[in-house]
Amino acid sequence: MNFKQSEAIEILEPTPATLTHLLSGLSQEWLSTNEGGDSWNSLEVVAHLIQCEKSNWIPRINSILTNIEDDPLPPFDRFSHLGQEKGIEELLREFSQSRQQSLYQLGALKIRSFDLNKTGLHPEFGSITLQQLLSTWVVHDLTHINQITRVLAKRYDQDVGPWKTFLSILK
Amino acid sequence: MNFKQSEAIEILEPTPATLTHLLSGLSQEWLSTNEGGDSWNSLEVVAHLIQCEKSNWIPRINSILTNIEDDPLPPFDRFSHLGQEKGIEELLREFSQSRQQSLYQLGALKIRSFDLNKTGLHPEFGSITLQQLLSTWVVHDLTHINQITRVLAKRYDQDVGPWKTFLSILK
Repeated sequence: MNFKQSEAIEILEPTPATLTHLLSGLSQEWLSTNEGGDSWNSLEVVAHLIQCEKSNWIPRINSILTNIEDDPLPPFDRFSHLGQEKGIEELLREFSQSRQQSLYQLGALKIRSFDLNKTGLHPEFGSITLQQLLSTWVVHDLTHINQITRVLAKRYDQDVGPWKTFLSILK
Repeated sequence: MNFKQSEAIEILEPTPATLTHLLSGLSQEWLSTNEGGDSWNSLEVVAHLIQCEKSNWIPRINSILTNIEDDPLPPFDRFSHLGQEKGIEELLREFSQSRQQSLYQLGALKIRSFDLNKTGLHPEFGSITLQQLLSTWVVHDLTHINQITRVLAKRYDQDVGPWKTFLSILK
């Protein structure tokens, strides 16, 4: 296991700024592109990240820390952000504020090493630990930055011509 | 085809800032992690991006624009950056300066629509167009941001426990 809370925060803290530089000011052609079907565009990914700040990470961390037994985690609807109509600048600002608030709340919880083994009940996985939830928060950020770069790249899938064979992101 | 030069620059311009927020200040544990074997860590990816600014994009664009026939593109060694020992802050600064310079040079070339069909000879692919090269530059940036998020995420591959099945970046 590699998890350390201070190192996890090194990743969590700059994510809004990373996404702001990646997405702020892009034209609608970039922002509305997706991977086909009902896959998400970049706006929907950021809206999903905001939803996670509100209803997933801190509520679930709180639940694990305050329950005595393996209580069910608060539910989280992974699709509740769809249908929003905010622009990218507003979404990025909202994500930035939500993340700042989440990290403030996380700091205030003063999680100690022995807290990391405390557990909650996930509806699909059964018993999970606080350490697994915190690690997932980190990887979830990276997953969605990864997804956005893939979604954007797909727009030039044909434009790159024969170079496509060298560009693993297009596979 | 979706390529437009102004939209391509929307992606190319902020890449150094995006990577700076993603990587600046990370502890050595994050920066030195890779995907196993002789795969690249984040430092090596940024060093590769710098090398591309110096020996790939602008030299190849110039070559296509100035040659009359299908001349061979200037060669590019994809591994020439390995073995460097610079720290992340120095690499990010250098990438930022190189990219700024590349985009200045690109602007000065005043590429027009009809230039985009001009060709060069790639050692493996044969004839390629300027439009394909410019599109590849964009997707190459996104590929390497994508790669860095994947490399970082892999460090928590075990830490996330059963959530691994939900996190496509770990597959």
